[in-house]
Amino acid sequence: MKSIKAVTLVGNPKIASRTLQVAEEVTGQVTGWLEPQGVEVANTTVDIAELGGGLLEWENKAVNDVLQRIAECNLLIAASPIYKASYTGVLKMLLDRIPMEGLSGRVAIPVMVAAAPIHMLAVETHFRPVLIELGACCPTRGLVVLESKLGELSDVVGKWLEAAKPMLAPLLVTRSS
Amino acid sequence: MKSIKAVTLVGNPKIASRTLQVAEEVTGQVTGWLEPQGVEVANTTVDIAELGGGLLEWENKAVNDVLQRIAECNLLIAASPIYKASYTGVLKMLLDRIPMEGLSGRVAIPVMVAAAPIHMLAVETHFRPVLIELGACCPTRGLVVLESKLGELSDVVGKWLEAAKPMLAPLLVTRSS
Amino acid sequence: MKSIKAVTLVGNPKIASRTLQVAEEVTGQVTGWLEPQGVEVANTTVDIAELGGGLLEWENKAVNDVLQRIAECNLLIAASPIYKASYTGVLKMLLDRIPMEGLSGRVAIPVMVAAAPIHMLAVETHFRPVLIELGACCPTRGLVVLESKLGELSDVVGKWLEAAKPMLAPLLVTRSS
Amino acid sequence: MKSIKAVTLVGNPKIASRTLQVAEEVTGQVTGWLEPQGVEVANTTVDIAELGGGLLEWENKAVNDVLQRIAECNLLIAASPIYKASYTGVLKMLLDRIPMEGLSGRVAIPVMVAAAPIHMLAVETHFRPVLIELGACCPTRGLVVLESKLGELSDVVGKWLEAAKPMLAPLLVTRSS
Repeated sequence: MKSIKAVTLVGNPKIASRTLQVAEEVTGQVTGWLEPQGVEVANTTVDIAELGGGLLEWENKAVNDVLQRIAECNLLIAASPIYKASYTGVLKMLLDRIPMEGLSGRVAIPVMVAAAPIHMLAVETHFRPVLIELGACCPTRGLVVLESKLGELSDVVGKWLEAAKPMLAPLLVTRSS
Repeated sequence: MKSIKAVTLVGNPKIASRTLQVAEEVTGQVTGWLEPQGVEVANTTVDIAELGGGLLEWENKAVNDVLQRIAECNLLIAASPIYKASYTGVLKMLLDRIPMEGLSGRVAIPVMVAAAPIHMLAVETHFRPVLIELGACCPTRGLVVLESKLGELSDVVGKWLEAAKPMLAPLLVTRSS
Repeated sequence: MKSIKAVTLVGNPKIASRTLQVAEEVTGQVTGWLEPQGVEVANTTVDIAELGGGLLEWENKAVNDVLQRIAECNLLIAASPIYKASYTGVLKMLLDRIPMEGLSGRVAIPVMVAAAPIHMLAVETHFRPVLIELGACCPTRGLVVLESKLGELSDVVGKWLEAAKPMLAPLLVTRSS
Repeated sequence: MKSIKAVTLVGNPKIASRTLQVAEEVTGQVTGWLEPQGVEVANTTVDIAELGGGLLEWENKAVNDVLQRIAECNLLIAASPIYKASYTGVLKMLLDRIPMEGLSGRVAIPVMVAAAPIHMLAVETHFRPVLIELGACCPTRGLVVLESKLGELSDVVGKWLEAAKPMLAPLLVTRSS
């Protein structure tokens, strides 16, 4: 049994948001798919809103712990609601603290929750470029879940994962073993 | 003498940053150009970093005051350093608090400070779209100042303003009178 | 009576497309709004598909005539269907022939026709930046018309124009007189 | 010995351009790295400019042959000079002809040649999103070569490939065997 470290990073200004729920569904399904293939996933979920004012300090233990987890991970599931047709400020505040090339060698999956379909391109035009700038490998299409589809969350994520598997498997299953 | 209200919004996580200096140079030059044409500019500069943890609260007097100033302004000079090839999280946190269409009818000028020329397109591909989403009118090219040119800041801003005047004059001089 | 020159540029690979119909509706409504204010609009509509293989030649009379019209215009209505989540290749081929800063001082309005709402952001993240790069002034929000709304085209364009008037009037009415 | 099919697609309006030279250097280095690992690369280079007016026809044998090659490939190296801060119209004309999801399951590498560093972000904000829209897997950072560095092309490509190998190897070496 091989093992990879994952971080599920949630950038909603509210604690315990629907964005958290969506991100955990993605992590759960990816984990459930990897484990039967002999890849154990040790995940840490970070609900950025819980960091509160610590986010604005230059040295803060909780923030530094999160950055350390990210530095050690193999897989980053990064999630944000769409605000003003882009990712949230609170997510970007955390991403701004990651050092240059700090996601180099990590597989990253951008996930967004959208109130309306007209903003869905944001995951490709705004969110993915930040992850790429940090050096991440984003082999799949970004996942955007419409709020109106949250009732069928498991199906929406499942359909996305089905299409993503051929790109994720070589990077997460083969490479890690 | 007619009068317009301006807000100079600075989204650098450090107080009293070079981004603040650049934004104030822009506001100063725009003001200096408008006043001889009979348009007085009443400016409020907001250094977002000074809001500290208040930024993360749902109800905070200082943040609400800033939002009120923005709601009342005619001209928004919004400035950010380029972090991870986009605007900062701290700037976006403040922008996320502006209501839908909250910049409708306002003229907005996106200003960025870049460590390297390779990120200069961020002002057009990431920053301007957020201002447009909020309903702003962005008639000019965005201004990006390279850190290496901060010694000639006045010239860099002056050159940008010269090209921007034909687009700004009808909206700020004629319309306000 | 003052007069401005407009070019309505249509980048659909098919001649006489619905994109042409949408673009002409925009030009028609802008013209109908400007004329009672004393601004006459002399418009040239260019259906790029009609240029055929001439588009690929370095020197072609029809293409050069189009470029000359663009060089002389005050207002450019540029329209494209959304293909692969962006503007079409045929539109970009024509835009690629415009010299650097060739739209400087011109007001430009990006217009797109979308099969689905999920691609609507393309007008702000891909199309507008090309016009800005060419030096254009894009004071309004881009207009995206869904194919499913073509039956109510006049209303869709009318609603967009209503919101755009406060930004267009100073640049087209006041400035031209 | 396993084998993969590659297409090197060059979107410069001039035949035999420097863009072609850059794209072939990328394909050459990727091939030279894969073959000692037991992966043979059968490459077809397509210089889109050679298609001439056929690009504008709905049914053209040469264009259809290119589309067939793309449909059968495992790896697409797609190259464009940066025109107006984005990819060229001639490249997009060819991409517009690929059916929906037509790059699904293929690894794609966006390559650009830039006259100036200020446009380098175009590869991530404009070019990659089109490839993703077509369903491609883009696991690496895009490669942008400055014209001023063409004299050291082999080194520039080599440095990019070194960083890209950990992302390409699982998808091209392991998966294909």
